[in-house]
Formats: sequence, C-alpha cells, structure tokens
Amino acid sequence: MKNNDIAEKNRWQKRRAAKRAKLAAAGMADGIVVPSEKTVSFLETVIASGDRVVLEGNNQKQADFLSRSLAQADPGRLNNLHMVIPSISRPEHLDLFEKGIARKVDFSYCGTQSLRMSQLLEDGLLEVGAIHTYIELYARLFIDLIPNVVLCAGFAADRHGNIYTGPSTEDSPALIEAAAFSDGIVIVQVNELVEETADLPRVDIPASWVDFVVVADRPFYIEPLFTRDPKHIKPVHVLMGMMAIKGIYLRHQVQSLNHGIGFNTAAIELLLPTYGESLGLKGKICRHWALNPHPTLIPAVESGWVESVHCFGTELGMEDYVAARPDIFFTGKDGSLRSNRLLCQLAGQYAVDLFIGSTLQMDGSGHSSTVTKGRLSGFGGAPNMGHDPGGRRHSSRAWLEMRRPSENEAETYLSRGKKLVVQMVETFQEGGRPTFVPELDAVDVARHAGMPLAPVMVYGEDVTHLLTEEGIAYLYRADGLRERQNMIAAVAGVTDTGLAQDPAETRRLRSKGLVAFPEDLGISRTEATRGLLAAKNIADLAEWSGGLYRPPVKFRSW
Amino acid sequence: MKNNDIAEKNRWQKRRAAKRAKLAAAGMADGIVVPSEKTVSFLETVIASGDRVVLEGNNQKQADFLSRSLAQADPGRLNNLHMVIPSISRPEHLDLFEKGIARKVDFSYCGTQSLRMSQLLEDGLLEVGAIHTYIELYARLFIDLIPNVVLCAGFAADRHGNIYTGPSTEDSPALIEAAAFSDGIVIVQVNELVEETADLPRVDIPASWVDFVVVADRPFYIEPLFTRDPKHIKPVHVLMGMMAIKGIYLRHQVQSLNHGIGFNTAAIELLLPTYGESLGLKGKICRHWALNPHPTLIPAVESGWVESVHCFGTELGMEDYVAARPDIFFTGKDGSLRSNRLLCQLAGQYAVDLFIGSTLQMDGSGHSSTVTKGRLSGFGGAPNMGHDPGGRRHSSRAWLEMRRPSENEAETYLSRGKKLVVQMVETFQEGGRPTFVPELDAVDVARHAGMPLAPVMVYGEDVTHLLTEEGIAYLYRADGLRERQNMIAAVAGVTDTGLAQDPAETRRLRSKGLVAFPEDLGISRTEATRGLLAAKNIADLAEWSGGLYRPPVKFRSW
Repeated sequence: MKNNDIAEKNRWQKRRAAKRAKLAAAGMADGIVVPSEKTVSFLETVIASGDRVVLEGNNQKQADFLSRSLAQADPGRLNNLHMVIPSISRPEHLDLFEKGIARKVDFSYCGTQSLRMSQLLEDGLLEVGAIHTYIELYARLFIDLIPNVVLCAGFAADRHGNIYTGPSTEDSPALIEAAAFSDGIVIVQVNELVEETADLPRVDIPASWVDFVVVADRPFYIEPLFTRDPKHIKPVHVLMGMMAIKGIYLRHQVQSLNHGIGFNTAAIELLLPTYGESLGLKGKICRHWALNPHPTLIPAVESGWVESVHCFGTELGMEDYVAARPDIFFTGKDGSLRSNRLLCQLAGQYAVDLFIGSTLQMDGSGHSSTVTKGRLSGFGGAPNMGHDPGGRRHSSRAWLEMRRPSENEAETYLSRGKKLVVQMVETFQEGGRPTFVPELDAVDVARHAGMPLAPVMVYGEDVTHLLTEEGIAYLYRADGLRERQNMIAAVAGVTDTGLAQDPAETRRLRSKGLVAFPEDLGISRTEATRGLLAAKNIADLAEWSGGLYRPPVKFRSW
Repeated sequence: MKNNDIAEKNRWQKRRAAKRAKLAAAGMADGIVVPSEKTVSFLETVIASGDRVVLEGNNQKQADFLSRSLAQADPGRLNNLHMVIPSISRPEHLDLFEKGIARKVDFSYCGTQSLRMSQLLEDGLLEVGAIHTYIELYARLFIDLIPNVVLCAGFAADRHGNIYTGPSTEDSPALIEAAAFSDGIVIVQVNELVEETADLPRVDIPASWVDFVVVADRPFYIEPLFTRDPKHIKPVHVLMGMMAIKGIYLRHQVQSLNHGIGFNTAAIELLLPTYGESLGLKGKICRHWALNPHPTLIPAVESGWVESVHCFGTELGMEDYVAARPDIFFTGKDGSLRSNRLLCQLAGQYAVDLFIGSTLQMDGSGHSSTVTKGRLSGFGGAPNMGHDPGGRRHSSRAWLEMRRPSENEAETYLSRGKKLVVQMVETFQEGGRPTFVPELDAVDVARHAGMPLAPVMVYGEDVTHLLTEEGIAYLYRADGLRERQNMIAAVAGVTDTGLAQDPAETRRLRSKGLVAFPEDLGISRTEATRGLLAAKNIADLAEWSGGLYRPPVKFRSW
C-alpha cells in the first residue's frame, strides 16, 4: 500500500485505530478474560479521558463491579468522561463525578441517588447532557451518543466471550450493539466464567460483539423493585381497582396492557380472579401484558386470565415461577426468562391498548410528574408508556373508541384512535399532601435547574382517563381544555382543585357520562373490601404459585 | 413425578410440547441442517395448519427459498396459516393465499404486489389482520402476534446454527427473538454453510436462538431500492434542495436527520458539498444520519460533512464503500455493515431532529398518503419517521424551535418541542396529476376495503414544514387549522388548491414569515441548475468513492 493510500485509509478509521491502540496497550494478546484484580488498571488503559462510556445501571442488573472499579481509577490519568447511564442507581455512579473522573452524564432515571445528583449539579461537579426516557436514550446511542466503551453485566460468559445475561437481559443487547458495531470496546462483568459455549445455559449476546469479560468479585446487585406486598393494599385501592375493571377495562374491552408499579395497580391484578371473574370477564379482557413479572399477577395467571407477558426485566424470587410457565412468559431454550427492556418498551408503546399508572402530582390541566423539589429523578419509561404513539396505524376496539365522533364521514376516516392512558391516583398522597396542585413542582425544578422544559411525565392531552377514589373522568371525551379541567376537578375530592368545582357542572358531567362516580358504575363503596383480593399477603402469593415463587427474605413474615 | 404433577406441568407448556412433537416428527435428531431438497416436506412437518408464521420479506433480504418452498406445500396438509410478513415483496408471498395454504396476513408494506393483494382481498382469498408500520408490527410479535414459526434469511451459518446475516441484518433480530424465546421454531435459510463458528465473518444471531438452517438453492434476492441516479435530478429538485438547506436546515440548525427516498432528497444530499459549503455550513448541520447507505450521500461523506450514519438495511453496491468508512457507518469486527431496521426506526423516531420525505397526495389540511386507488401498499416506516414522538423528553435547538411561543412562563415550561417533519413535494406528480387534492384517495380506499381508518402516511398536524417548488410553508407556526390551510394553498402552485388561495392572505403570510418564496430566502431560481450537483450521474458517484462504490449493472452506462 502506498503512503497516501494508508493515510487515506487511516482518515476513515480513527475509531478503529484508537481501539487497536488501546487493546495493544492492554496487552491482552492471549485472551479476552481480564484478571479481576487488574480491572482498575485495565479500565485506565482501555478508556481514554474524554471518552463516552456507557455504564449499565439498570433496574435489576448492575455492572457494579465495573462501576466500583472505574471509581477507583486515578483521576489524574482518567478524567472528563462522558457517562451514559440508563439508571443511576449505585453510589459509585456519582462518586465518578465527585472524584473528577467523569464530567458529563446522559441518563434516564435516577432513583435513590436523585438528591445527591441535584447537589453535585449545584456544586458544578456534574453536567447533564439530557434526561431521557429509556428508549430515546438507546436511540441516541446510534445517532449522536455513539459510545467508545460499554460496561455491562451478565450471569456467565464462556472463554470466547459469549454471554448469558440471565433473566435480566434488560437493556444489555441495545447498549452492547451500539459499541460492538462502531469500533467501541465492550466489557462485560460476569458472576461466573465457564470454559465452553455448551456450558452456558444459552447465549444472549454473541462473542463477536464482546471484547472482554471479567469475573466480578461478587454477583451483581439486584433489588426486588416490582414486588408489592398485598397486605398494604387498602380498601380504597380495592374500590379504585373495581372502577378500573368495570369502568375502563370492561367498557373498552381492553385486551393488552401495561401496569405501572404501585398498590393501585397491584389491587387490579388481585381483583381479576375475584371481582373480574364475577363480571364474567375471564378470557375477554386483559389477555396480553407488557410487564415485569409482578408477583401480584400470579393469581391471575394461575386462574387462566393471562395469555402472555413480555417483560422489561425480571423480578427477584420469580425465577422458578416464570420458568414453570413458558406458555405465558418469554423464556429461552434453557428455560429461564428472556427479558428485553427495549423490546418491551416498544411493545408497551405500540402494541398495547392501555397504560395505567400513578403519579405524585397532577395540575388542573392533567399534566403530571413524579419529580418533586430537590430531586432530579428522571423519567424511566413512563413517558413512553403514558403517551399516544402517533406513529401507530393498526387499530383495536379500545383504540378506536378514543376517537372524537364526527358527523362528517371523511373526517371520521381521517381521525386517529388513541392509546388509553389512565392516571390512577388517590386525591391525597401519603402524609396528606394533595395530588392535585395548582402548579407542578416540576415547573420550579426546571426554573432552578435551567432546564428548557419542565420534567413532565405524562402530558394532560395524552391522558384519556383519570381515576381517583371519587370517580372516573373520561377525559378523552372532553370538548376542549376548559371541560377537561372541569372533569378533573369533578374527581379531585377535597383538594383545592376539587373544592373549586362547580356542583352544577359536575352534575352535568355525570349526567352526560363524562364523569362517573362509583354509584354511576353500579359499584357500592361498601363492597370494596380487602376480602375481594385474591391474595392478602406475600404468603398467599407463594401459595398460589405452588411454592414456585420464592419471595426475598425482606418480604417474608412467616 | 406424579401424574397430576405432570398434568399440571403440561398445562403450562403447551407451546413447548407442540414444538417438541414437531421436532420429533421432523426426525432431525442428528443435527440442525435441513437437507435443501427436503425443505418442502420439512416445512409441512414443523408448521401446523393454523400456525402463525413470520416470513422475512424485507427491503433487501428475502427468505425467498423458504417462501418458495412453503408455497409448494400441500394445502390439504398445511392450510389456514396466519402469515406475518413485514414486506410483501415476492410473488410467492401471495401464492400462499391463492393456493389456500395461508388465510390471514398482518403486514407493513406491499410494494410491487399491491395490486394483486387488493384483488385477492376482493376475491375473499385473503384476510388482512392489520396494516402496520414496521415498528408496531415487531412490537406486536411480543404481545398478541407471538409466532409459532419464523422463517428468516442470512448470508451464512455454521453447523451449530450461528448466523451471519451479512450487511442486511434488517429485522432478523427482532423477528427471530419473538420465536426463539416463546418456544417457537426458528428456521434460517443461508447462502452458505460453514463448519465452525470461527469460519463465520461474525455472528449476528447466536445459535441458541436458531432451531434449523437450510442452504438455499440460490443466494437470496436483493434489489437496489435506495439508489437514485443523479442524472434524473431536475433543476426544480435543485431549487427545492436549496430551499431545504437554507430555509429549514440552516434556519433550525438541524444536526441529525432522516431522508426519505426520492430525487428531491437526493438533490439535497448532492447540494451539501456545493451549495451547503458555499453557505459555510459544513460541520454545522446534517452531522448525524439515520439512513440506508444512499449512494448519493457519498460526496457529502467524502467532503467531511457526515459524522455518522446508522442504517435500516444496506444498499447493493455500497458494501466495499461502507466497509472502508467505519468511522461513519456501523460495522462489525469483520468490517462489514451491521444494519438493524428496528434500532434505526427507533433512532429515526426518537433521536433525530428532522424527517424529510415526499408523498403522492396531500389534502388541503396537510394529510398525505402514498396509497392510491386499487393498491393496498401499506405503510413501511414513513408514519413513524413522519410524526412527532410524544414520548420524547430530551431537547435540541431544532426541536425546541417548534414550540408555540407563550407569554406565560409556566406554560412555556409545559409546552413540548416537536420533531421537524418536512413534506417536500412538487405541486404536480409525473404525468401531470396534482399532488394537492380535495380528498385523499386513501379515504376512498378505506371506504371500499372496509377499513376503520384511511391509510394516511403523515397526518397534517404532524407536518411542521411543507416545501414545494413555490416555497416553504412553516406550518408549525400556523395558528389553527384555517391558517394552516391558507399556508398550504400559498405554496400549492396552480393546482386547484393553490388557485383557490387569496392573494392578499398569501402576501400577509409572506410578510409575517409564515410562508417564504425562494426570493424571500435570497434564492434566485436561475441559480438552481444541475451544475450545483456534486455528482451528475452514477459514474460521478463511483468516482467520488474512489472506486469503492460498485453500482449494480442496471445503473451503469459506461
């Protein structure tokens, strides 16, 4: 090759050249398995200052050995990293910024670390690229956030680099693909190393996408985030669950859905086999789910309500149960769950009839947010589930029913259906704070953090139904913003928003069926007792599962 | 195990049991490689009547050996299949229905077969589940269209079942995942079988997701769908391209984008290194792309405009060029392109500033469709690219500029940006049919096919900019439907829609900057000549590429 040919070639392969140089410096010519005790210096070698580094912080799979190792790097040698972390969930994620190793972060969710995050931002130690939903963060990895290095976690690897992620595949395939096909470097921590591919239960990520594996000092951290103990479900949740089933699921014949996580939706799951059964609805509604394997779904599965569940991630304790129900859950040839956050987010957006979730605050127009003062908690996936995907073109009965009726035939053909987005909230939160507020705290958070937009989870115009203990507002039928506001006020109870309602207007809304109180739906408040729940506690759930569900210790009281 | 334990277990593993029975009947105990000559009877064995079968019909990868084999099955033995075909592109896809092997179809796109499709529907030989966009069809595979069998195509497989898809990975990972983790059966046709994994260029699909491979009788069919010969670009396309660059890309500082396929957008690609350069825009706009490897993008890549391109699929003839530009295109360790239709659709929705595309018809409110009478052509991905994804939460300058300004500070924090959706159309189509029509043919198609909704590609309320040879209508600034209609009429030329405009209103719209004619943008119509194109023909493109682009024979004239 002539010199100018080489120069021409090099001009287009800078990322590949940088990778080769790092790999040469790492001196791993004889294999891909990094000795665990050398992880810190290895990361200092294969990551360069200023690199964009994706770190798997997930709901239920943490690349925590890698993050702890990275946090031990010498900031004199490694600094100004641009981190991309789907879920900032470990203390060492923020240590990176405090120590000066990382500078900028793009992320989706920040739960337990949100207070410290705000502090670091205020102290100028951390710069936020943007706060995303999961799915748009993955998308940007292929456009303008292409990573130099990806740090992920799996259960096991073989010596070639094939990875078994275990039931928490979550976002590993999306994160890894972005680096594997852009001359980035992929490093996966595993709990266990096996010799041959045949020794792995299955392959979730092929070896040709992976550069290095390292055995972690201890199994990655996992937390049962989606377990709700039925003993905490109150009669008001039962009442609201009955309204959801009769006033929304039955009315619109909801076939496929996604539930948020909370005692409200857990109540619905536990009412299907009892109250739902009494309405003769089995096999007629709620057949297909996009959902983590919630333990509270077990009685509905066992009584034959559920045809399929696709999962974002797994849930601790549900492994054996899921494996024993392969007709319902997605499992591999090895028998264990295959979750996939990207695909499940997509399914929850584009393939289901309904999303139902809760929130901390809602304003008079129906905008809602879980962001409260001093906490930069991010979005997760709720905004994707809780909006109407305008790119959808197939229809379902429920979706079509959200159309505004028109006298004009051509207009009807041109009007779209809508995904059902249900906000299910008590009018007051724990501690007596009103859910309905004149202005979302999120607006003030944006003001103070210099954000261009308030971090709204679900916009008012996307909410089709508002369900409180007072009743259901069928917001998709509202004729304009003013009527929507009146409908919200009608079910806002004794909050200021609710007290400002005009009783005559509320009567009109009820008479037109725009708002329904429990009695309008034929539901008596006195019926709504915990006795209707198919399981009253975790032990009941374990029993329903025939012993297959093994609750984590913190949920055991027997 | 006791009998009732076995019964209990079987109750939950019906799909697994069905798969095992099929596999046993197929008698393939000694391997996964199906003898090519036995493919028809093999398919008759592992597919059952009534099964849901996904068949990879793609833009540039066809499981055509498998589809031809399936079409030879005995309809007495195999019938009532429910096919899921992303792109109905081969004659045998419809033979399946004509012969009575298949009955129902869910699909996304139907190009060359659309006329026959309509006929089969009318003759009652075919039933349409729904017409989807690609991404929602993939999503439903995990919710309520879970497949029993998936038939896909790749370049090569090893004897374990690891698959190298070649540069057209396209939707194979999404389709295969749906069956591989639901006890479905995955069968992949390949052009070549190798012995060992190390003999494959790379692994795109791991063996543990694949049940069977079969060597096709000939390499799968591939068509250069995304090649536009610059010799067909007319001065009017150049004019419109200049308006796009100056009046939209520059104005909103568009960083990341997706181009539809057509001579209009090809003109833009070829104007970047000339007209774009003269405006000093290199490195300032159009840096990141979600796009098939369009040959007309070569001059922009070569002159340093393009930082990255993520691809839906590949393009015939571009293989060596793409492989030689790994900093720009996503490539594997083997050096060849890795495309991924699902990820690119996601990126085009959630990560880019702008989509620009063309259409065949637009009504006075801005709704548009490429569906015309007698052709059930489906959607493909355009509706996903051409809408504003309401689940987006990160911002960019271009996205924020689409907000409606508000005096109220809190309202501003609560108002979302929008993705830029540009419709770029000449006022008349080839053959003199007007683009602007009083009613879309799509409405009539829906009426006659009994569809609940007209097959609209892009809805008027999602269009932010309309660009014709007359000018640009900045529709995102329209104050209500009436003004939007007036703005559309102002650039609709001498179509009936355009002739109905009120000249005084058009002057007002121009003076307010809601509509801009070329002269308003400082563009002289006489400047707009083919001389501005960086390449005038395919030979020029090949030359720009340094001989790396190898145009298919049908595009060669030298």
